[in-house]
Amino acid sequence: MTARTAEESKTIMTDLVLPSETNPLNNLFGGELLARMDRAASIAARRHSRRIVVTASVNHVAFNRSIPLGSVVTIEAKVSRAFKSSMEVYLDVWIEDRESGECIKANEAIYTFVAVDETGRPIRVPELIAETDLEKQRFEAALRRKQLSLVVAGKMKPNDATELKALFE
Amino acid sequence: MTARTAEESKTIMTDLVLPSETNPLNNLFGGELLARMDRAASIAARRHSRRIVVTASVNHVAFNRSIPLGSVVTIEAKVSRAFKSSMEVYLDVWIEDRESGECIKANEAIYTFVAVDETGRPIRVPELIAETDLEKQRFEAALRRKQLSLVVAGKMKPNDATELKALFE
Amino acid sequence: MTARTAEESKTIMTDLVLPSETNPLNNLFGGELLARMDRAASIAARRHSRRIVVTASVNHVAFNRSIPLGSVVTIEAKVSRAFKSSMEVYLDVWIEDRESGECIKANEAIYTFVAVDETGRPIRVPELIAETDLEKQRFEAALRRKQLSLVVAGKMKPNDATELKALFE
Amino acid sequence: MTARTAEESKTIMTDLVLPSETNPLNNLFGGELLARMDRAASIAARRHSRRIVVTASVNHVAFNRSIPLGSVVTIEAKVSRAFKSSMEVYLDVWIEDRESGECIKANEAIYTFVAVDETGRPIRVPELIAETDLEKQRFEAALRRKQLSLVVAGKMKPNDATELKALFE
Amino acid sequence: MTARTAEESKTIMTDLVLPSETNPLNNLFGGELLARMDRAASIAARRHSRRIVVTASVNHVAFNRSIPLGSVVTIEAKVSRAFKSSMEVYLDVWIEDRESGECIKANEAIYTFVAVDETGRPIRVPELIAETDLEKQRFEAALRRKQLSLVVAGKMKPNDATELKALFE
Amino acid sequence: MTARTAEESKTIMTDLVLPSETNPLNNLFGGELLARMDRAASIAARRHSRRIVVTASVNHVAFNRSIPLGSVVTIEAKVSRAFKSSMEVYLDVWIEDRESGECIKANEAIYTFVAVDETGRPIRVPELIAETDLEKQRFEAALRRKQLSLVVAGKMKPNDATELKALFE
Repeated sequence: MTARTAEESKTIMTDLVLPSETNPLNNLFGGELLARMDRAASIAARRHSRRIVVTASVNHVAFNRSIPLGSVVTIEAKVSRAFKSSMEVYLDVWIEDRESGECIKANEAIYTFVAVDETGRPIRVPELIAETDLEKQRFEAALRRKQLSLVVAGKMKPNDATELKALFE
Repeated sequence: MTARTAEESKTIMTDLVLPSETNPLNNLFGGELLARMDRAASIAARRHSRRIVVTASVNHVAFNRSIPLGSVVTIEAKVSRAFKSSMEVYLDVWIEDRESGECIKANEAIYTFVAVDETGRPIRVPELIAETDLEKQRFEAALRRKQLSLVVAGKMKPNDATELKALFE
Repeated sequence: MTARTAEESKTIMTDLVLPSETNPLNNLFGGELLARMDRAASIAARRHSRRIVVTASVNHVAFNRSIPLGSVVTIEAKVSRAFKSSMEVYLDVWIEDRESGECIKANEAIYTFVAVDETGRPIRVPELIAETDLEKQRFEAALRRKQLSLVVAGKMKPNDATELKALFE
Repeated sequence: MTARTAEESKTIMTDLVLPSETNPLNNLFGGELLARMDRAASIAARRHSRRIVVTASVNHVAFNRSIPLGSVVTIEAKVSRAFKSSMEVYLDVWIEDRESGECIKANEAIYTFVAVDETGRPIRVPELIAETDLEKQRFEAALRRKQLSLVVAGKMKPNDATELKALFE
Repeated sequence: MTARTAEESKTIMTDLVLPSETNPLNNLFGGELLARMDRAASIAARRHSRRIVVTASVNHVAFNRSIPLGSVVTIEAKVSRAFKSSMEVYLDVWIEDRESGECIKANEAIYTFVAVDETGRPIRVPELIAETDLEKQRFEAALRRKQLSLVVAGKMKPNDATELKALFE
Repeated sequence: MTARTAEESKTIMTDLVLPSETNPLNNLFGGELLARMDRAASIAARRHSRRIVVTASVNHVAFNRSIPLGSVVTIEAKVSRAFKSSMEVYLDVWIEDRESGECIKANEAIYTFVAVDETGRPIRVPELIAETDLEKQRFEAALRRKQLSLVVAGKMKPNDATELKALFE
């Protein structure tokens, strides 16, 4: 199974914020953004694995900036690291100002997907090749995050999470 | 501002999995569940704060169990801890078997909301009173999670996250 | 087939009124509420019968109170009486005031569902046990409503509708 | 205020049954049909009154025939009688067989709408002129139905519902 | 295969402009109107052919008039000419003023559909009989449009498009 | 007003074909694709003009290839030529094979948008700079298409459409 670069999985989803997706302050509902990011991330994971993929988990997502009705929102998703049958996908979300054309980072998110066969059983995926500095940095951090999620889920003892533990020393 | 119990914020959203919400394996899309949970959690946060609330973050959410088309899904959301203007909301998701009527835990999730005034500025919320053992346990863990999210966001140094650090000692 | 209590079928669906569901006065469309009530009632009927259920009829539904955009709406559905293969489901709808937290009854509705097998043929359902005073009262009235619907549909002669006729004497 | 004929309010809504609107038996959800009928009926009421209209009630609706995915559904709505500020709208629903082109009556329904001004207060509507035999018959029955709904709502004593009472004598 | 009249395929779709379908100027999105017209036209083509039909092309559609939120929009679709397995469908779109009841033409559009069998292969359709003057005029122009679309697609040489060429002489 | 390159307006919208968007052959509805392309094209026009934009017309769109449920669809939209207040936007649509990762051109479309001010009046837009060969070719053809649409709309005499007439000589 040939390894693939992060760039090969890159998925861009640019779309409008429609009136049916807004909260009482006329900003995009958090839940709608979560659903859009899930679709974009699943396409990136599918491009990397060339398999059916299902959402396994969503990492901590912070909504730093509200996204008003009528905004143009661009979601960019790339696989940041591949494990046996799971892939971590890193998402960057931008909104752009209509008049200046300037792009502002609205938030980041990390989803994990599992590649499955037609019966839903996990199946091996190719390795990921990180090329740019940012891709390498996210690739490194992915292992730490995986340990963290195993600790949080009670599937790994904190002391075995070596990458993570190092943070606190 | 009078403190309120977790029970007072309890929100139950029972609904079907509709055909438009399913992936190629005929299971509920992860993104759709994230959007539903966001709505349920926002109602719990609103019941606690009696304010407009906006999603601030989503904690690690694991999708342990796929939810097939036609399922009855019950989301129960309760505020687990209140901070200055933010509230952590804990969600439990069940699906039930049509023939046996048995309920199975499908997953858990944690969202954080901020209460805001009409102009979108954060505003103080009442304290939360945890009553049951489970509520107390989630109340305690909430502080650890808050530190974790500050560390991950680079807003707190790992060594200042005392609650969290204790885990690794 | 063991009888089940009304409480066992109780279904709570709490959700927001979204911008896409409102009429020119910024209130929830009657049709949207009818659709939500249909989903909630079908879940109650399914919980009682543990079968696939299909909507058979909707009784007179009055929209006494408009439900503004952004409201939290709670629909509570319970089977009120079971006949051979059909079940009457009684729905109560509340909206709550965000600031006071007070709940106001917005309207009531009655739907009838039929339990069917995989080929769509009607199939026998368990009896319903009414426990509380309100459940008993609704259980009694259900027979009168059934006769009324048969009379209206021209399937029963007014003079044979003994329960109903008594009303006019 | 000039009276208008039933024909002037006639509204035809022909549309497909889409995959997102079906239940586990692959038939149109009852709730979806209720929502479509609400929109069609509101247009008929608006054409008669030339005012903003809001749903006041839904009369007994029977779902006699299931409507499969992919069907062409035609809803025809006409005002059947106008009262002070309310209008009864009668709906006929047909599905057509793709191969023979034959139309089959799927069900009937009756909705009541109230005309309101911009602030939501009821406002007077023109009288309705029934022309055809069917229109006249529905016009006559409308008064009986109005009394029935008042009796059911506890707003009229059964013995004052003269039109209705006559049915049982 | 018996020829059918244009009138036999006539399809009327009257519906509201809902809040979820509007752009930042509070008018119906062009894309939503295109989708509605596609559904209406497909029903007309299906009524003519009594087959499954799929969209083959959309001719030049001009949006001459914006359609505000809350409008009642009527789409009328009729087959204008049948070729071997394809059908040209002509659509007229009106909006009506609530207060005067007056109907205004909002725009016209032309779609082409192909009738297919269950495997998706094109299949022969009946001829179309144009009866009224307008139907005859649109029937004639349909051939010119077909040539134009073949020229634009590079499937016919301009000099072979005799009907079309005549325009420029 | 500074001219902008076609590249600056480039908009990529990658998304899945969801179950609610498919026809009886389980392919994407033509109307849904038209609506998606409208949103993508409107973003490209907005990026070029930095104004509110509204759909003015849709040119001949051919649906050469059906797009099955579950496909990943990528729409790329770029402004191909700017006139006074209108912009022609050229769209290319690809689907990709999950297993081979290969991209196949599914269809092309051309939409025209008008830039407007807050009151809906047309407003001047910057010129477009075509850089690549393909951009230049589409830029040239745009004038011919504009003449064609004016001729079809009866707003220009065929003999004045010099660019177009040349085709037939």
